[in-house]
Amino acid sequence: METILNFLRLTDAEREAFQSAAPACEHLFRPVADQTKDARTAPEEELRRATIIIGCPPAAEMGKCPNLKWLQTWSAGVAPYLVPGVLPEGCMLTSAVGCYGPAVSEHMLACTLSLMKKLPAYRDNQSQSLWTDEGIVKSFDGSTVLLLGTGDIGSHFAQLTKALGARTVGLNRHPETPVAGIDELHPLSQLDQWLPQADVIAMSLPETPETIHLINAQRLGLMKPDAILVNAGRGSGVDCLALAETLKAGRLWGAALDVTEPEPLPADHPLWDCPNLLLTPHTAGGDKLDATIRRIAALALENLKYYLAGEELRNRMK
Amino acid sequence: METILNFLRLTDAEREAFQSAAPACEHLFRPVADQTKDARTAPEEELRRATIIIGCPPAAEMGKCPNLKWLQTWSAGVAPYLVPGVLPEGCMLTSAVGCYGPAVSEHMLACTLSLMKKLPAYRDNQSQSLWTDEGIVKSFDGSTVLLLGTGDIGSHFAQLTKALGARTVGLNRHPETPVAGIDELHPLSQLDQWLPQADVIAMSLPETPETIHLINAQRLGLMKPDAILVNAGRGSGVDCLALAETLKAGRLWGAALDVTEPEPLPADHPLWDCPNLLLTPHTAGGDKLDATIRRIAALALENLKYYLAGEELRNRMK
Repeated sequence: METILNFLRLTDAEREAFQSAAPACEHLFRPVADQTKDARTAPEEELRRATIIIGCPPAAEMGKCPNLKWLQTWSAGVAPYLVPGVLPEGCMLTSAVGCYGPAVSEHMLACTLSLMKKLPAYRDNQSQSLWTDEGIVKSFDGSTVLLLGTGDIGSHFAQLTKALGARTVGLNRHPETPVAGIDELHPLSQLDQWLPQADVIAMSLPETPETIHLINAQRLGLMKPDAILVNAGRGSGVDCLALAETLKAGRLWGAALDVTEPEPLPADHPLWDCPNLLLTPHTAGGDKLDATIRRIAALALENLKYYLAGEELRNRMK
Repeated sequence: METILNFLRLTDAEREAFQSAAPACEHLFRPVADQTKDARTAPEEELRRATIIIGCPPAAEMGKCPNLKWLQTWSAGVAPYLVPGVLPEGCMLTSAVGCYGPAVSEHMLACTLSLMKKLPAYRDNQSQSLWTDEGIVKSFDGSTVLLLGTGDIGSHFAQLTKALGARTVGLNRHPETPVAGIDELHPLSQLDQWLPQADVIAMSLPETPETIHLINAQRLGLMKPDAILVNAGRGSGVDCLALAETLKAGRLWGAALDVTEPEPLPADHPLWDCPNLLLTPHTAGGDKLDATIRRIAALALENLKYYLAGEELRNRMK
């Protein structure tokens, strides 16, 4: 008999759906209060018994799960579990990649629109009871959005901005494969040709050797003087010191970062007081949006059915 | 021969289009630097000669235009020009109603999304170099947007929010006439029934005896505890003191006001330091967005062609 240790914060209906999908299994529901915090574990005896875990126990705890046959994470990234020896021999691993598109892309949209309409400046004025006109604003309508990162998040963001009138151009390593919401795809090697044409540069890239400091001082210099840069991928994708210098020199319309290098950003980092910068502390994803949890629950349930039927799981990483 | 006094800030192509549409007319191009400021006038001799004016000279100056046969404003409202005696006998009046939909609705979208994603709180944290998680956020996806005001602005806002997954409900006096982007229309008399069902209440109403303090303390109390109120119509549509009390009592998710009562908001008004309030100083419309000026220029050009052909003008107010 399988024992399913489920850390998701489920609705009653979802809990029942898990139970009726696997009536012969033991279900241990241990919902966490906050998926983004680290204490995602259970009594040692339950970890030992679990053959299936849905959630993200700390990698250091995985040695307590000798009977584990499948781990479904709620995170999109699974790097800690891929380290040799962390998971038992033969244990399958599936990620929640694809569940964060709506949450992260909406956050990116909110930040970009906020910059276009100068809302950070109006917020600062409001703090001082100042009724001051901040002048011209920008619009997505008629703009060109350049997507660096054309996965689930980039595709969702492209769809949202297209609905607001933007033309969407994506750069990646497989430009021959169409992506929903993206009008044109080109090879990432054409980055320097596309940067001067973009009104919004939207980054949702994972961290790889190729993406570290992809946006550096030289490439910031290639952008339009009134371009907007948004990064919700990994902080290392942008040289944050170069960006601070660029913004402080009065170049670019603005930038929005949900991710920085390093994280958390030290209190004395030059980014904090940059004009026209909007900073959020890596909160675009996580479990901030109810819809994200519902998507992860649906994915886990679907994979549980495949697992019990002996079929191939979605988002298989190992 | 007609003399056209044109205060619009035109592109070269637009200027040429006006000239070739009316080659037999005298064109006096007097572009203003800022349509939202009051000094929108010309030398007395030009005002006297003008038979057509495109722009908004102060109503007090209109006595200097005895030969005026048609005034095309760049404003949506034309109340000052409707006062008896302001325009010469028989002078036609057309407004720019319909040109501000994209600008104002995008501003409303930016403000609402900003509140949904708690960007004002993150901005305040950033000012103090604080890397602090502000918790759960909201989404338009699956939400109900209640539109009070279903004209050009309300219709545009409805279309934008529908693209983000909202259901849109409009209330007006003519619910039998469909409005683009609005899923359901009901009579405004059903307001108290619809307020408890709305996640976002979006106001773009003109000021009339019926709309003054339409949203008062009692109706704020009917809203969901986590509703968002947005007003970009007229400040008098909301009882601003009641809203300040409501927000300070911790009710509602938040509110965004581009218009207040009075304007400008006095420095000691209780709205300034309300939690979860986003204030902009009546800047959503005006000539902040390039697209607005282009729309007004296109409307004025179209009306000039109708005028010269002796056809009915669009947006005729008098």
